[in-house]
Amino acid sequence: MLRYLTSGESHGKCMLTILDGLPAGLFVDKRLIDAELSRRMFGYGRGKRMSIESDRVNVLSGLRKNRTIGSPVALSIENADQSIDRLPAVVDPRPGHADLAGALKYNTKDARDILERASARETVARVASGALAKILLKEFGINVTSHVVRIGRIEAKTRGLGVRQIETMASRSPARCADPVASRLMQREIDEASASGDSLGGIFEIVISGAPAGLGSHAQWDRKIDARLAMALVSIQAIKGVSFGMGFAAASVRGSMVHDEINFNRSKGFFRNTNNAGGIEGGMTNGEDVIIQAAMKPIATLKKPLGSVNMKTKKNAAASVERSDTCAVPAAGVVGESVAAIEVAGAMIEKFGGDSIIEMKRNLDGYLKQIRKF
Amino acid sequence: MLRYLTSGESHGKCMLTILDGLPAGLFVDKRLIDAELSRRMFGYGRGKRMSIESDRVNVLSGLRKNRTIGSPVALSIENADQSIDRLPAVVDPRPGHADLAGALKYNTKDARDILERASARETVARVASGALAKILLKEFGINVTSHVVRIGRIEAKTRGLGVRQIETMASRSPARCADPVASRLMQREIDEASASGDSLGGIFEIVISGAPAGLGSHAQWDRKIDARLAMALVSIQAIKGVSFGMGFAAASVRGSMVHDEINFNRSKGFFRNTNNAGGIEGGMTNGEDVIIQAAMKPIATLKKPLGSVNMKTKKNAAASVERSDTCAVPAAGVVGESVAAIEVAGAMIEKFGGDSIIEMKRNLDGYLKQIRKF
Amino acid sequence: MLRYLTSGESHGKCMLTILDGLPAGLFVDKRLIDAELSRRMFGYGRGKRMSIESDRVNVLSGLRKNRTIGSPVALSIENADQSIDRLPAVVDPRPGHADLAGALKYNTKDARDILERASARETVARVASGALAKILLKEFGINVTSHVVRIGRIEAKTRGLGVRQIETMASRSPARCADPVASRLMQREIDEASASGDSLGGIFEIVISGAPAGLGSHAQWDRKIDARLAMALVSIQAIKGVSFGMGFAAASVRGSMVHDEINFNRSKGFFRNTNNAGGIEGGMTNGEDVIIQAAMKPIATLKKPLGSVNMKTKKNAAASVERSDTCAVPAAGVVGESVAAIEVAGAMIEKFGGDSIIEMKRNLDGYLKQIRKF
Amino acid sequence: MLRYLTSGESHGKCMLTILDGLPAGLFVDKRLIDAELSRRMFGYGRGKRMSIESDRVNVLSGLRKNRTIGSPVALSIENADQSIDRLPAVVDPRPGHADLAGALKYNTKDARDILERASARETVARVASGALAKILLKEFGINVTSHVVRIGRIEAKTRGLGVRQIETMASRSPARCADPVASRLMQREIDEASASGDSLGGIFEIVISGAPAGLGSHAQWDRKIDARLAMALVSIQAIKGVSFGMGFAAASVRGSMVHDEINFNRSKGFFRNTNNAGGIEGGMTNGEDVIIQAAMKPIATLKKPLGSVNMKTKKNAAASVERSDTCAVPAAGVVGESVAAIEVAGAMIEKFGGDSIIEMKRNLDGYLKQIRKF
Repeated sequence: MLRYLTSGESHGKCMLTILDGLPAGLFVDKRLIDAELSRRMFGYGRGKRMSIESDRVNVLSGLRKNRTIGSPVALSIENADQSIDRLPAVVDPRPGHADLAGALKYNTKDARDILERASARETVARVASGALAKILLKEFGINVTSHVVRIGRIEAKTRGLGVRQIETMASRSPARCADPVASRLMQREIDEASASGDSLGGIFEIVISGAPAGLGSHAQWDRKIDARLAMALVSIQAIKGVSFGMGFAAASVRGSMVHDEINFNRSKGFFRNTNNAGGIEGGMTNGEDVIIQAAMKPIATLKKPLGSVNMKTKKNAAASVERSDTCAVPAAGVVGESVAAIEVAGAMIEKFGGDSIIEMKRNLDGYLKQIRKF
Repeated sequence: MLRYLTSGESHGKCMLTILDGLPAGLFVDKRLIDAELSRRMFGYGRGKRMSIESDRVNVLSGLRKNRTIGSPVALSIENADQSIDRLPAVVDPRPGHADLAGALKYNTKDARDILERASARETVARVASGALAKILLKEFGINVTSHVVRIGRIEAKTRGLGVRQIETMASRSPARCADPVASRLMQREIDEASASGDSLGGIFEIVISGAPAGLGSHAQWDRKIDARLAMALVSIQAIKGVSFGMGFAAASVRGSMVHDEINFNRSKGFFRNTNNAGGIEGGMTNGEDVIIQAAMKPIATLKKPLGSVNMKTKKNAAASVERSDTCAVPAAGVVGESVAAIEVAGAMIEKFGGDSIIEMKRNLDGYLKQIRKF
Repeated sequence: MLRYLTSGESHGKCMLTILDGLPAGLFVDKRLIDAELSRRMFGYGRGKRMSIESDRVNVLSGLRKNRTIGSPVALSIENADQSIDRLPAVVDPRPGHADLAGALKYNTKDARDILERASARETVARVASGALAKILLKEFGINVTSHVVRIGRIEAKTRGLGVRQIETMASRSPARCADPVASRLMQREIDEASASGDSLGGIFEIVISGAPAGLGSHAQWDRKIDARLAMALVSIQAIKGVSFGMGFAAASVRGSMVHDEINFNRSKGFFRNTNNAGGIEGGMTNGEDVIIQAAMKPIATLKKPLGSVNMKTKKNAAASVERSDTCAVPAAGVVGESVAAIEVAGAMIEKFGGDSIIEMKRNLDGYLKQIRKF
Repeated sequence: MLRYLTSGESHGKCMLTILDGLPAGLFVDKRLIDAELSRRMFGYGRGKRMSIESDRVNVLSGLRKNRTIGSPVALSIENADQSIDRLPAVVDPRPGHADLAGALKYNTKDARDILERASARETVARVASGALAKILLKEFGINVTSHVVRIGRIEAKTRGLGVRQIETMASRSPARCADPVASRLMQREIDEASASGDSLGGIFEIVISGAPAGLGSHAQWDRKIDARLAMALVSIQAIKGVSFGMGFAAASVRGSMVHDEINFNRSKGFFRNTNNAGGIEGGMTNGEDVIIQAAMKPIATLKKPLGSVNMKTKKNAAASVERSDTCAVPAAGVVGESVAAIEVAGAMIEKFGGDSIIEMKRNLDGYLKQIRKF
């Protein structure tokens, strides 16, 4: 069992996470966590806040001499601005945010009580836990990456590119997009939206390669790995949709065009020539790359504010304006990788048990041998 | 806390569910459960199996004189064909099914061990538990319905229709589609696919009306109601994508076109004129209708079978053919309603506590008064 | 993850359990489940009800040709008397039972709504699930047994007896007590209590042998195996205390008399000459026998009823009298074995992962080799 | 749902806890948390370590202007000694500790990897979370206290004392014992054990007053509040037994001497003249004080070390000696209060729902009115 909680408010002391259930003996290079935090911070379309922030992880517990010891790992990231107690009340809730629903639920006339926690700043803690999950997965040859496939009206063309290429190309693009032409158009799209005080969303794609067949289970609804991944992805701020493989497009074509025929050869074992399933069949990984797309709505804080209602006077008012970005899809992709990595790492731990890296590897190797000789 | 498990194999004795956590004092009309089971069975595109089956629920426990008493409720639905022990082995796994991944994971050369449980027959148990959830929600004026918005290439037009209309129109359509023109085209689409031994998927939409603002929470990733709904929906067999409100389309337009401005008047309290958010902001219901779309891939068992590999000989083989439908989207919509109803009922129980209907109502009333006077 | 729910009322159709998470490929001899049900039924001190009942398990799902297939297993046991809807209301709650607290909580004036579910009849479902857990544990050489060490004033002397002896002796005793002298005295103690319309409790001890070191974890409070076992044991009807190894007696002596010194030899590896810890240190099994004691209060339904209050009139009344036993400690021991077996089986599945018996064994073997070469 | 995790190693940076699920609007006086930390630190029998430590809580997140806002609350307590990376390896595992089982499980030859986390230092984090739970419970008139009833051979006599008296007397005693005579004898008992390099355990009792009837549930095994409390208590380091009300003593007497007859009068409603059940019947609170006893074994680190085996050489060796106390029962009582408070607070949140203090109070008031008019 791998589980995590996060805590922290965007103008509180820090963002925090406890990740419980990592095996012992995993070497953790703190710089890899910082590198993930950096990947989350950058990306075309982020506002000024990002440029002044420079997130660095503090390992509060769980490591000894840079290795896991079976203990829960706690990571914190300090906030540059810790003024939560002095910041003014927010009484004009912003459409598209948690502000109003949260104020009603938690019975407060000051939406700051809500937005401080609902803020996407929270995702920095998830990226920190996700970095640990990625480091674990790397031990087993599992790689998690992402790239942006749409921002606003601009769609990327990546058909035919391999995962490695996608990863490399995306890492070079300010929009984290593997299609260089689309990348430039996306930047222009963002500039235009920014100029008119508006915001943009988009779609990112996660690719998980190297996962063995058989993670997750068909046997009970809440053990299906796609169900868990869907929960993880939709739990990210501003995500309004998630899909696997061919996704919504599979609804429009016939079965013979969708399902991935099964092949076998001695070196690869079972394999497919297509991957419309996105690597998941019956709630289990099937050995192909796991492919997830997630749709992000445009950022809800607009410089040109939307109509709202003052929670005290009940009079019409312009929605409150908090510091914000124009587009956060490139960053969201990194968050997506992180939460997906945690789910896959959790499924690995469930299937292979093991309290030490050595034990997990031994168990995984035994299984891989089993399915090779199947 | 409301939780449920299901069990049962498609050719075993019965399909079964235990739903744990219902408040006491809820009157359960068994006929309402059977009505939901019937809704699941029918729908254009189902195969012969459906016409010979006539699912009826057996209440095994949890009710006394047709009322809940705080006990877990167990419901079973007998299978017409209980030949699981005599049915032949399946050695040619079907692409798009759990067959191969499950066989590898559970170390069996007979995919029947997997497909008996992975079968969509399992959903009958979820519909039974979901019917209880719906009956509970009805007590609080919450209604859950669905309609088919796409089958293959045919898309329904329902813009401008109210929930009631949609519900009525869909109930009259063999495709469970609220657009009569599209409904006819969908049937033709299905006939054509059937004639060529192929299958179809589609998209259904769930509409939950009457839920108060404040279900779910922004405060922790796994408490967000959209995350939980996404998990529930994706856990349904063959669902490859889920979205909320404007969904993936929100990725293509600017923020000013997406976020739902906030209004207020004395009779309604806070309300919106648009509902692009699909009734959920910040992981919480906002008082508007909750709108979910789910994409179903075409049925994976094709009469004209796809290429596969014999698990014993490792030679190429045509995929095994089990009895199957051409299109199950109308049925899947009913399943979607069921699992969504369970999640919303769970969120109601979490927020309003209460061990009896009277207590839950009192707590809900208190809250509704609170937000009315907010 | 291994989890289970039960459902069922004592005069409803049946008692039911779903056990989710068993590995595939486990051969289940239904007669072994029935044998456990029989062990639960008999034992000196049970009332007439037991003699007319003859519990037999129905496997509703999860097995194919008597083997697990990764599916959740559902087991039911029919009730001989299914008159729940016709039985009279209970308005005079019985002290020591759930009657009054439950009636208040669930807002009912008829405590039958509560007692039907709170009844110890529910434990038959746990014994059924526990039998599956025991069958699984047997595959790994883990044995779970119990014996009665006290009934009323009579205490057994078993110091010096090995587990095998205890198991054999207890199985021959009507009181399930391994000390033949005490066994006879216990029967007399029960006869005397019965004659005066009174009831008796006692203490049983569970011994789990063959569990490897390292089940459970010190790393998080809810992962400690003794914590989980304590929860499981106390969840049994009428259990008022639980202890491990030396238990409460350890509170009275000095540390040097309590802690089990560590030894090592080539054939056994690490071992202890004493086992005051009861096989658990730091929330983990240490390789020695796990020893648990649980205290059961006397049965709360007395033929000579206690004072109570009519819930409708609020006038003093004699507590209602339901059919009942004089002493159920021998049966409770069997229930204790069952819930303990489920916890240990769950810990095995967590540590060794594995979706098939073959995989679990391979993983366990690898671990045993590791600690042998440690 | 109220849940918490802790993290931290005894010589790491800090001990940490995240408590998730507190309602909004709770005023938290940080000094009350510090007061609980102090109560945990003191108590006769603690070693030098305690006198140099002075634990102070840092609120890392979840409060705004000293009030909860629905966010998870994170609390940390800095460690005075943060030398974990420089401390020497521990190769001679200490009997009675997690050392050996943990080293085998997590595959390390250095038991420091284990003992740093298994240390009772971890409980400081639980006391911090428990302090929040207590502050919440105070809002509803629920008080949680504890006192020491046995240390070694010395037993306290407190029969006839009310809860208030017990609380006052215990707070004045260095042994946290409400019987002044026993308190002095306990100190002498500790001095003697200390002088001979030995250690002592004991028994503490927790009393929870003011909890309404109906917390927990009889309906499912893992919803019983005594089961949950047992898990929480046994999860505390060195606790080897737990009991409720009359506990193990109930096993020795007849039912008519055990069960608490039910009375009623207009002002109190239903009540009992005895409380042998310890306030819990059928897995639910019954409105009387909840009374729990927990047995702590003597501290496992002895100045006069026990026999052990060097994990590297496999030769006999004296067990490693870490800094330690002679007796920690008074401190353990405070920890016991803390974890019990969290469980009761969780049960309150489950039963009364509510996301704000105002809402929870309204729901509780409604329920109290209901059972008063029952």
